[in-house]
Amino acid sequence: MSLLVVGSMAYDDVITPAAEARDALGGSATFFAAAASYFTPVNLVAVVGEDFKHEEIAFLRERGVDLDGLTVEAGKTFRWKGRYLANMNDRETIYTHLNVFEQFDPRLPELYRESEFVFLANISPALQHSVISQVHRPKFVAMDTMNFWITGAPDALRETLKLVDALVVNDSEVRELSGEDNLIIASRLVQQMGPRTLIIKKGEHGALMVHGESYFFCPAFPVARLKDPTGAGDTFAGGLMGYLALSGKVTEENLRRAVVFGTALASFVVEDFSCNRLRSLDRKEILGRVDALRAMTRFEKDSFWPAEE
Amino acid sequence: MSLLVVGSMAYDDVITPAAEARDALGGSATFFAAAASYFTPVNLVAVVGEDFKHEEIAFLRERGVDLDGLTVEAGKTFRWKGRYLANMNDRETIYTHLNVFEQFDPRLPELYRESEFVFLANISPALQHSVISQVHRPKFVAMDTMNFWITGAPDALRETLKLVDALVVNDSEVRELSGEDNLIIASRLVQQMGPRTLIIKKGEHGALMVHGESYFFCPAFPVARLKDPTGAGDTFAGGLMGYLALSGKVTEENLRRAVVFGTALASFVVEDFSCNRLRSLDRKEILGRVDALRAMTRFEKDSFWPAEE
Repeated sequence: MSLLVVGSMAYDDVITPAAEARDALGGSATFFAAAASYFTPVNLVAVVGEDFKHEEIAFLRERGVDLDGLTVEAGKTFRWKGRYLANMNDRETIYTHLNVFEQFDPRLPELYRESEFVFLANISPALQHSVISQVHRPKFVAMDTMNFWITGAPDALRETLKLVDALVVNDSEVRELSGEDNLIIASRLVQQMGPRTLIIKKGEHGALMVHGESYFFCPAFPVARLKDPTGAGDTFAGGLMGYLALSGKVTEENLRRAVVFGTALASFVVEDFSCNRLRSLDRKEILGRVDALRAMTRFEKDSFWPAEE
Repeated sequence: MSLLVVGSMAYDDVITPAAEARDALGGSATFFAAAASYFTPVNLVAVVGEDFKHEEIAFLRERGVDLDGLTVEAGKTFRWKGRYLANMNDRETIYTHLNVFEQFDPRLPELYRESEFVFLANISPALQHSVISQVHRPKFVAMDTMNFWITGAPDALRETLKLVDALVVNDSEVRELSGEDNLIIASRLVQQMGPRTLIIKKGEHGALMVHGESYFFCPAFPVARLKDPTGAGDTFAGGLMGYLALSGKVTEENLRRAVVFGTALASFVVEDFSCNRLRSLDRKEILGRVDALRAMTRFEKDSFWPAEE
């Protein structure tokens, strides 16, 4: 089924303890669309500047991403520069130049308004709200957010949260949004704000889905050659929403598999800079990691210790 | 089969954001033995002072813990006082009084030397080494350690690591011991030091077992009423080794189940101070959490996306 993503497209300068990348294709919508494209066509809404390269457009188009929603404005594309610390987990931002993204006002092409699956990447809650109101009858709407909006636009965020089916965020954001340290209690509080489903990204610690009353946990795939964590969260969301749109039905079983596919896609993207690893994956590679993730958590009931005493 | 634990018995004063406990029964050997006692009899080697209460002895004896290896020395029992921060994860030690534990020199009663499963709780690597040399032909030896020994007694620790089958530690300790930030690479480096099996405790993020080339991950049980994390790691180890000794055979399947049982026991102990929750559990409760942990990671293969393209 049709999948819409609204977010950023950017050029990143990334410094890791081991290496450095300049003018690397980045942005939440880019990583999301590249990952989701392995499952389903993607309608993309974003804005870039005149400096945006044609080859990037070509790459996404070849991957089945519809770019009618991409506008090119006079000026420069969103630029971010950051440095990762030795643990490859914490990072410091050297600069953020919003450029044309500062005036981003997502307008959906008529066809996009029929999208059944919608992902609102990390943009202002007000813009996320405006996107939701432009879609006619979405089947499943998921959103991301960040501390900047939790503290900077709490009221708008609360309003938008009422309208979504799922929130896809980091554990620290769930704690900040709820004001509660215990993640289990925090999740329930956030569910009461609107989303029935919480998909909590914990980086190397995996992902926890709280769906209604049930919990599902998927560990991170053991990545030995971690090269650049940039975009892992958006790639996770892309694999998740892409799989869900492919399956067409939002059941708990499908949501669980979607979390696993998202985890698998994220495990690839961190093995290289930018979304380079998402340029040439094949289904067998992806399914190989899905199988590995299942094997990592499998255990059988035993006979040593029956419940009857 | 027979299970031996060598470690500390203590009285703890614990302060959490919500409450406070004084003279709470603690110590690594105490939590371990109380948890393991749900699966198998336990041979305990520890030292306490004259102030140690008879009721604690009675509690452990009733749980099937053999205390012939417990010596009572003139002086006071090991005392620790600590405070947990709001996240209930980080804690600060207010004081540590080793008291009689300072002169602890574990001597195994003759019968204990036949123990087949051995757990060396967090004591000095030299003492752990001495215990191993007192056991005739152990089937499976696991040890814990801490940053204090990793930095303070690195050579002795390396010697002891060569003699054990498994190391049960926190992820931060694996990183410090190996000098490597990537946990997957770090695990391989530690395996090269001796233990074929690493069981890495990640607190609320669950537990990762690296066994030879294979990985097993068990999430933490979602605990909403977290009251006191003290002893969670030793309780985890007790459930793990207790189950393993019960099963008798160290296969990967049994190790996996052992990690899950350890996780289940740890999820109970944190719901109250000291080892109070370990005083009156029943098997149905424990198996209920084991089933919940399996349900939390289960997902079925789907038909939407065959490997064949």
